[in-house]
Amino acid sequence: MAVAIALSRRGRPTAAPNPNVGCLIVKSGRVVGRGWTQSGGRPHAEAVALAAAGEMASGATAYVSLEPCAHPSPRGPCCTDTLIAAGVSRVVLAAQDPDRRTDGQGIARLRAAVIEVVTGVLAAEARAVMAPWWTRQAAGRPFVTLKLATSLDGYIAMGDGSSRWITGERARAHGHLERASHQAILVGRGTLVADSPSLDVRLAGLEDRSPTKLLLTSGKAPDGWTAVASPESIDGVDSVLVEGGAGAASAFLAADRVDRLLLYRAPILIGGGKSALGDIGLTDLADAHGRWRQTDSRLLGSDRLDVYERIREG
Amino acid sequence: MAVAIALSRRGRPTAAPNPNVGCLIVKSGRVVGRGWTQSGGRPHAEAVALAAAGEMASGATAYVSLEPCAHPSPRGPCCTDTLIAAGVSRVVLAAQDPDRRTDGQGIARLRAAVIEVVTGVLAAEARAVMAPWWTRQAAGRPFVTLKLATSLDGYIAMGDGSSRWITGERARAHGHLERASHQAILVGRGTLVADSPSLDVRLAGLEDRSPTKLLLTSGKAPDGWTAVASPESIDGVDSVLVEGGAGAASAFLAADRVDRLLLYRAPILIGGGKSALGDIGLTDLADAHGRWRQTDSRLLGSDRLDVYERIREG
Repeated sequence: MAVAIALSRRGRPTAAPNPNVGCLIVKSGRVVGRGWTQSGGRPHAEAVALAAAGEMASGATAYVSLEPCAHPSPRGPCCTDTLIAAGVSRVVLAAQDPDRRTDGQGIARLRAAVIEVVTGVLAAEARAVMAPWWTRQAAGRPFVTLKLATSLDGYIAMGDGSSRWITGERARAHGHLERASHQAILVGRGTLVADSPSLDVRLAGLEDRSPTKLLLTSGKAPDGWTAVASPESIDGVDSVLVEGGAGAASAFLAADRVDRLLLYRAPILIGGGKSALGDIGLTDLADAHGRWRQTDSRLLGSDRLDVYERIREG
Repeated sequence: MAVAIALSRRGRPTAAPNPNVGCLIVKSGRVVGRGWTQSGGRPHAEAVALAAAGEMASGATAYVSLEPCAHPSPRGPCCTDTLIAAGVSRVVLAAQDPDRRTDGQGIARLRAAVIEVVTGVLAAEARAVMAPWWTRQAAGRPFVTLKLATSLDGYIAMGDGSSRWITGERARAHGHLERASHQAILVGRGTLVADSPSLDVRLAGLEDRSPTKLLLTSGKAPDGWTAVASPESIDGVDSVLVEGGAGAASAFLAADRVDRLLLYRAPILIGGGKSALGDIGLTDLADAHGRWRQTDSRLLGSDRLDVYERIREG
């Protein structure tokens, strides 16, 4: 299942509007097919893996990171039927599909076809990799990542506004990779005016992955940008990367709409610069605790990247 | 030698005013004596290790983290003579003693006694453990550590000044251990007035290690405190821990008198609080780079401790 989940990562974010799923077909201890949701959402992971397996799929075990779809679509056959037709004898699943059109029906139909079904294997891990799609499906809003690049003392720029460069090349390249894995990037009007950021993905081979550009503003957006009036009013995308500045970052945190923090920290001290955040509505220090859990910490050149995820109930 | 250096750590900071040295005596592949500089500086590491080895020292190898002293002292015999008298056949050294009264003479006298001497083994590592004594010996000033406990967004308190608690128990206990390994602790007047810190070492068994209390002020200091007019005017101690607040921290950084940074970071966001640092005299962002090197990063409960050391030429 861990391999199926790793494969599912490859479909993020290009699988949208469909979930990024991974599938592995194993016959007599040998991998005979691998697949993940293709660009634009089709073909599905199961279809790709079964096509690779061919006749070897008969009697095989399919590991899938999400319950196979059970509802008909004009864009292709449903995966439950495809798995049954291929003759697999066993299906191991991570997460159950929260989409109401499937939600357990895929499992029920597989079992009705006398296929053994095991569920809930590494479900949390599978959901984490599908977090953008899952958040939009389950909560009706995009999964938001906030990126901050600061000095050790927490400043995003000098007092005069200069911020080129705080972090080094490897940290900036990592930031471009994060851009490529998001459907939309958002900045505030201050950042647009001060930096005129292109927000392109400047990584060889990934130039065409540049996401939709959103501007947090009560007014209109210039050409090439889409205006967003508030953190709550983003529609039509699974994942948003908030890149700056302090106003936009603070607005998303105050609205509790940030799910993940990317903190790039350079080994420098600025002293009396521009702070990363303004007021986020905190009135009691005790309330600040228990909200964030560190999920990664690594060196990128001489900079350190710390990743935190919002702890949410349920 | 790594063991001798590890032993030398035990003498920090109690060995002052002498260097914290470690010594290991090895005979036929067996450790026959271990020692480190005792409280108050005497007995020296070599004397302790040789006493433990007894007659086994004859023909043995002595590993010492600093060149043995060659100058007479009213407080005890010099270690070069003690090593010769014990009949060791080989001495392996890390760093040469920068004290002008020895500075190579220990090595010369050992060799004159037909003892094989190997020098420069893990010298940088040995010097790092002796950094406080070494800095005062070589640069005529104390080794200064700056401690900052902040939120992820770099604040040391809420806008209203409340800062209890930002970091958790394990991080605070680690802070007390750092206090115990320094000869003096310094705060600014703002912190003294706002927090009336006791600066005691609140760790079982280490209560008597509470360091001298320094107050950075242009005026007088209250009972139990010693007034210090500027970062440059500290005298009589090898090591100082600067604990707060932003004014004192910024003054030491502006004077380039900070050798080590301890950054305790809690997994919380405050947004618009009190910044860790004010102006430190930086005018060009490029000048901020190349000054700090990360030497440690670890989790203390849910907080992260990052340690940086000042990169100095020579």
